[in-house]
Amino acid sequence: MARFNELPAVEKLHALAEHPLDLSKEGVLTPERIKKMQCEALGFKLFYGTQRVSEECLEALLELAKECDVLKKNQAMQAGEVINKIEGCESENRMVLHTAMRDFFEDKNTNKPAKEAADLAWAEIEKLKGFLKSNTKFTDFVQVGIGGSDLGPEAICVALKAYEQPNRRVHFLSNVDPDDGARIFKDLDFSKTLFAMVSKSGGTLETLTNQEYVKEQIKKAGLDPKDHMIAITGKGSPMDDPQHYIESFYIWDYIGGRYSATSMVGIVSLAFSIGIDKALEYLRGASAMDKHAMTAAIDKNLPLLTALFGIWNHNFLELPTVAVIPYSQALARFPAHLQQLDMESNGKRIDKTGEPVDFNTGPIIWGEPGTNGQHSFYQSIHQGTTPVPLEMMGFSQGQYGLDVRYEGTCSQKKLLSNLFAQSIALATGQKHKNPNKVFLGNRPNSVLFAKQLTPYMMGALLSYYEHKVDFQGFIWNINSFDQEGVQLGKVLALKIINQFKAQDENKPLGDFVLGAAYLNEIKSFF
Amino acid sequence: MARFNELPAVEKLHALAEHPLDLSKEGVLTPERIKKMQCEALGFKLFYGTQRVSEECLEALLELAKECDVLKKNQAMQAGEVINKIEGCESENRMVLHTAMRDFFEDKNTNKPAKEAADLAWAEIEKLKGFLKSNTKFTDFVQVGIGGSDLGPEAICVALKAYEQPNRRVHFLSNVDPDDGARIFKDLDFSKTLFAMVSKSGGTLETLTNQEYVKEQIKKAGLDPKDHMIAITGKGSPMDDPQHYIESFYIWDYIGGRYSATSMVGIVSLAFSIGIDKALEYLRGASAMDKHAMTAAIDKNLPLLTALFGIWNHNFLELPTVAVIPYSQALARFPAHLQQLDMESNGKRIDKTGEPVDFNTGPIIWGEPGTNGQHSFYQSIHQGTTPVPLEMMGFSQGQYGLDVRYEGTCSQKKLLSNLFAQSIALATGQKHKNPNKVFLGNRPNSVLFAKQLTPYMMGALLSYYEHKVDFQGFIWNINSFDQEGVQLGKVLALKIINQFKAQDENKPLGDFVLGAAYLNEIKSFF
Repeated sequence: MARFNELPAVEKLHALAEHPLDLSKEGVLTPERIKKMQCEALGFKLFYGTQRVSEECLEALLELAKECDVLKKNQAMQAGEVINKIEGCESENRMVLHTAMRDFFEDKNTNKPAKEAADLAWAEIEKLKGFLKSNTKFTDFVQVGIGGSDLGPEAICVALKAYEQPNRRVHFLSNVDPDDGARIFKDLDFSKTLFAMVSKSGGTLETLTNQEYVKEQIKKAGLDPKDHMIAITGKGSPMDDPQHYIESFYIWDYIGGRYSATSMVGIVSLAFSIGIDKALEYLRGASAMDKHAMTAAIDKNLPLLTALFGIWNHNFLELPTVAVIPYSQALARFPAHLQQLDMESNGKRIDKTGEPVDFNTGPIIWGEPGTNGQHSFYQSIHQGTTPVPLEMMGFSQGQYGLDVRYEGTCSQKKLLSNLFAQSIALATGQKHKNPNKVFLGNRPNSVLFAKQLTPYMMGALLSYYEHKVDFQGFIWNINSFDQEGVQLGKVLALKIINQFKAQDENKPLGDFVLGAAYLNEIKSFF
Repeated sequence: MARFNELPAVEKLHALAEHPLDLSKEGVLTPERIKKMQCEALGFKLFYGTQRVSEECLEALLELAKECDVLKKNQAMQAGEVINKIEGCESENRMVLHTAMRDFFEDKNTNKPAKEAADLAWAEIEKLKGFLKSNTKFTDFVQVGIGGSDLGPEAICVALKAYEQPNRRVHFLSNVDPDDGARIFKDLDFSKTLFAMVSKSGGTLETLTNQEYVKEQIKKAGLDPKDHMIAITGKGSPMDDPQHYIESFYIWDYIGGRYSATSMVGIVSLAFSIGIDKALEYLRGASAMDKHAMTAAIDKNLPLLTALFGIWNHNFLELPTVAVIPYSQALARFPAHLQQLDMESNGKRIDKTGEPVDFNTGPIIWGEPGTNGQHSFYQSIHQGTTPVPLEMMGFSQGQYGLDVRYEGTCSQKKLLSNLFAQSIALATGQKHKNPNKVFLGNRPNSVLFAKQLTPYMMGALLSYYEHKVDFQGFIWNINSFDQEGVQLGKVLALKIINQFKAQDENKPLGDFVLGAAYLNEIKSFF
């Protein structure tokens, strides 16, 4: 495959980027444009008339998708090809099969590794059904894990809290900061609490440390840890041990942490909260989006279109960040999940042949819910010097069925009015004789709209973003599935941990002089 | 005052930025550098040896501070000069006196407007003391407000939750999304709940809407709203009404929303939670940092140094964002507050004379706690193509006094080992023959360290960031205290709200054709 900057479409797009569409110009953003520039599938409607793309630009972006053969690559991924690798370097050399974790609703999958993975995943679901039936005494569930074992599962549980069963609460303990645990333990009835220890390798330092912390507290409460703990881990890992856990639920090496929210890593807590049937609905939604991503035509493919606008904004309009703004308080923690999903996948400096890239890979992802953001950082988004592309989303109905009419409209419609008003204001801007009231506009944005954030739609939304990320990775020809960039910090942290130990024992701090320097400088604080 | 790009120090800094200090070079980051490049005050130690600043660069930055006379400007602000204005344009023309909200611990303030403001603030504190004494039946407190009436107060309450009094809970209702309220109401005993309606103008749409929502729910519970509501608002605003509220607590036009976390906007909820004495400690810490910011020498001034490194990274090294990473789970919501504080203050496109700027103003601020971030977006921070400067912080002790020893060290020390390991790894990087294990380093960062996140230190930390922001605004010569950029969206949202009303009544949608276009396109979702 040609390198990104050698693709014909890329050359064309660079030329087009010299004079991108000016949305602030009278008559450019019209009702016809809004009507035309949209894509509908699976109950979602994506409005993208407020992206800075002309018809010609859109065609060049679709051309880019074709030149990179992205649908075929997505299919290969879902079929179980070994795509987590870097040619010519030591690398993970794994399949990437998170889509198989939810691929058991249609019986069309005949591809062997994917089928086997789906069968294994279904066996875990059956095991979970049995477990939930025979362990009904628990009212509280504490998931102990970090990164992908925390962010995605938490985001989903928060998003679907409206569907929570009576007298069920889910908590997430991630940070090695002892205050994180203390905060949770404070109000917990340990006798009714189930702890899930989540680590694929069974060797994550934060999680092992917090496991000890949890065990100590369970014992303090006069209980036996092994009656209150389950493991979610790789088969055969040090955590896969019936002596210490009521049950083990399995994940496999072809499930990356940040892609694990539909594996047991995400499903056990979710099913505890909303019940197994609704949790299966969530998987069904995710699987439906997988099929859409793999098979929908490129100009009608939701995650692909979003991926392409992202590339246009990032590589050609040179905008360094993306703000994800759900107009839905339920999605409050979803941007934090997407931060990991996107930045850990695509924040890379070499391509799949091991060569350093000469273009920008994954942008910085951030965001908070609207309308809250409007009263916070939108000042900078409208009038700041670093334009920010926005990915906004909204729903016509709330989850709780509770609302209030005030001055003639309900809150839900006030919320949506703000969503669409911002989409327009950001695009068109405003001319004014007072320079402080000038808005330059041309802030690219899109709106993803649906009826309600149900479990099904949550699954579909999660998968939509997973495929946005893999499509961008395919186009950049980078490996979106490893994370070598987290290793160096881990290695140095272990060195300093040993230096702390040495310091406690009045021994010399050893040859890591920079760690020793910091430790000496903070000595007086202890 | 000369424009930013005409300052001699700016010219010098641009020249230096062509060859910034290379921290990845052997022998550049040394124990001596870590020891030398630090600044200590008020119990904080700021380590900045891992910024890309040479001695010469540091001198040029201090020169810049002098050329902009930043200490004098900070003093003028704290004394009550009318600095919230743009020359020659219609603008707010107000004093900026959030520092007076906590300036009653020393009797040295003789400047008239500031003294008067401090006296008024103290009178509110006295009123609050009385209120808390005679209203002890409430166990739950719901703050209803948005933007500055939500983010700062919530961040502080979350940060100091470890100090919460028994049987006290504080909730924050901000979003006009009806699910935000429904989520809170679900588990609430209304008979024991106090609602604080917070809006300076008394006219914030979201807050008025949520007020109606709250009132309906109180009535549904068979209670009288006026026995359960207080107002925090401007004197004489529509909300300042003893007929509808148990009590009014006042704020003034010289307190911007994002600077209101030490006014009644932040203190009522905090004092309800941790008690008035600890809330006063928080104010004492903030005030101590105000004095430090105004009087400490420029090379020993904590918020000023941080402001200067920010300008170096943003305007000269051209890094568009800043990640704030507290290695403290208690500070989980602090980055969201700083997002508003910084981006709403300094995300501006004109200077104080009304001229468009020809340089970058406020960066994009984002962040999550460490070590969690390490398992999320640090991949991109280490190996991505958009380097991110980090402002990290840590404490030698937790808040709860609970910890666990595992493999020879406690969790707190594991947490700190990670903090310092990252500081070093980000700066130095790593050479390697496997291109996937190469880390370029030169990711600028600093570490702010202290003993414990007490109420006093939380106040000082809040004020530290307020002054970082005002110092940067003084240097850029922009107005950090208005927010015209939020107006356009509000105006268009009201138009669409009216179009929703018209649609409900089968009337024509009127002449805002872009709003009408969106409403037509989503009609089928209702």
